Amino acid sequence: MKELTPNRRMFIKSLGVASASSLLLPSGVFGGIPIWSTTVGDIIDRFIGEVSGAPFSQTVDTLKAGRRDMEVTGVVTTMFATIDVIEKAHSLNANFIIAHEPTFYNHLDDTEWLEQDDVYLYKKELLEKYAMSVWRNHDYVHTLYPDGVQQGVVDRLEWNDYFDPDNRNRYRIPAMTLESLIEHLKKSLGIKTVRYIGNPDQSCSRILLMPGASGGRRQISLTSAEKPDVLICGEISEWETAEYIRDARSKGDSISLIVLGHADSEEPGSAFMAEWMGANFPNIPVTNIPATNPFSFR
Amino acid sequence: MKELTPNRRMFIKSLGVASASSLLLPSGVFGGIPIWSTTVGDIIDRFIGEVSGAPFSQTVDTLKAGRRDMEVTGVVTTMFATIDVIEKAHSLNANFIIAHEPTFYNHLDDTEWLEQDDVYLYKKELLEKYAMSVWRNHDYVHTLYPDGVQQGVVDRLEWNDYFDPDNRNRYRIPAMTLESLIEHLKKSLGIKTVRYIGNPDQSCSRILLMPGASGGRRQISLTSAEKPDVLICGEISEWETAEYIRDARSKGDSISLIVLGHADSEEPGSAFMAEWMGANFPNIPVTNIPATNPFSFR
Repeated sequence: MKELTPNRRMFIKSLGVASASSLLLPSGVFGGIPIWSTTVGDIIDRFIGEVSGAPFSQTVDTLKAGRRDMEVTGVVTTMFATIDVIEKAHSLNANFIIAHEPTFYNHLDDTEWLEQDDVYLYKKELLEKYAMSVWRNHDYVHTLYPDGVQQGVVDRLEWNDYFDPDNRNRYRIPAMTLESLIEHLKKSLGIKTVRYIGNPDQSCSRILLMPGASGGRRQISLTSAEKPDVLICGEISEWETAEYIRDARSKGDSISLIVLGHADSEEPGSAFMAEWMGANFPNIPVTNIPATNPFSFR
Repeated sequence: MKELTPNRRMFIKSLGVASASSLLLPSGVFGGIPIWSTTVGDIIDRFIGEVSGAPFSQTVDTLKAGRRDMEVTGVVTTMFATIDVIEKAHSLNANFIIAHEPTFYNHLDDTEWLEQDDVYLYKKELLEKYAMSVWRNHDYVHTLYPDGVQQGVVDRLEWNDYFDPDNRNRYRIPAMTLESLIEHLKKSLGIKTVRYIGNPDQSCSRILLMPGASGGRRQISLTSAEKPDVLICGEISEWETAEYIRDARSKGDSISLIVLGHADSEEPGSAFMAEWMGANFPNIPVTNIPATNPFSFR
């Protein structure tokens, strides 16, 4: 495909929207003329407005700190609003973090069980001290067409020519060995070490690409249906997906599994969000701060 | 503690039971006199009989293949009844596998969603062809006092002198660096590579040891209550426990996390089960076949 991908088309459309709306919702001070400010809610609503079927009645994409009516001085996009990312955002005079994953260590960001926990309390008070808003953009960015996280990853891998419009987890790349594929993934996504199951000499062309932690049943069901040469995931449950792949190989299937690590596998989604911010709110400073992979290997 | 651990006492008690019951429930042919056989159900019931509060009305510890009334020719204990382990068991003339984890890639061994999957069908048919029974012993072995898996791990680590009877996840070991601790874990448990978060030079004495995948909330809650120098887990959700430890360190806590890998972290539990079989059913051949860690690192 040499034509524009849907992603690129969407950006052009987004830019159009931004230009029009900047007349309606100007931000800050321009040419000495005071103009309206942009709030946390303005940014959230603009993004949600691009998502089919949104807003969702049930979603984890809620404000984890701050308020909708807070005037935005700057935005940081990231995978995780870690304490480190919060400190960096504050030092950049940004007061709005758009994160992809939970702030408080569980999918629903339930904090009742953490009320006595000093790590939670420290983080909560830090966010209050800095008057920082945090919004999780998970369900919405994944429901965007194309999925903003997937698109960010594919851009980095330079696989836009290889995706199948019928199934955006399915790619047919020029054949390479599993070893070469791992090197390409590591280099493109800035990963030091991956876990894998497979023969480094196996030829890989049919790829099932599933960044993040989409769950054992979904990973296995898609693998079962697609029969790829290799399944690439962000995170898995070892006793689910890894054991399925191990048994498939024992049965005689030529199939491999590469586990990239959750943060590294979806961080390009926060680069996508920074690009979206720049296109839609060009007057607001935006910085993509990768949360980075927390693990070392030894 | 130089005295016998509860584990050792239990084995002596178990041996006593075995000696007594072998008069009641003899097995095979002895001295030309035909004697009663041992069934899958006999072994399951004997084990369950040692567990407080058992049998449980709700448990994942069900027969995954075979029948309770099947006469046992030999037993294999393992973490996962992989296709490879099934083949090895059959070659040893064993027809009963006691596994710790699921056979069919999900916690409840629900197979309805796998009815069209050829890996599942191959494994199911292989088990039928070999007339092999598979029992999951997860909830029961963890509820035994002491937890049979934890005890197996502690035996390998030679930490029986260091556990706290009030909390068997808590150990106070002679201080060593995180780097040395990792080397000790790898050597004792036969692990090639671990993932970790922390400073290799950190001094570690207060250990929270949680083999397996006990879940983010339990791992975090115990860490919050215990404030260990290092949390050692089998498997985690990266966006839960790893992010909590990362934030705790950013806050200033001197704490580390070591992730051993699920299979390696609990495989000593299947060695424990082989020992239990030998003590309780000395006439039945038993072999511990480690499922091994499926992952390579690159």
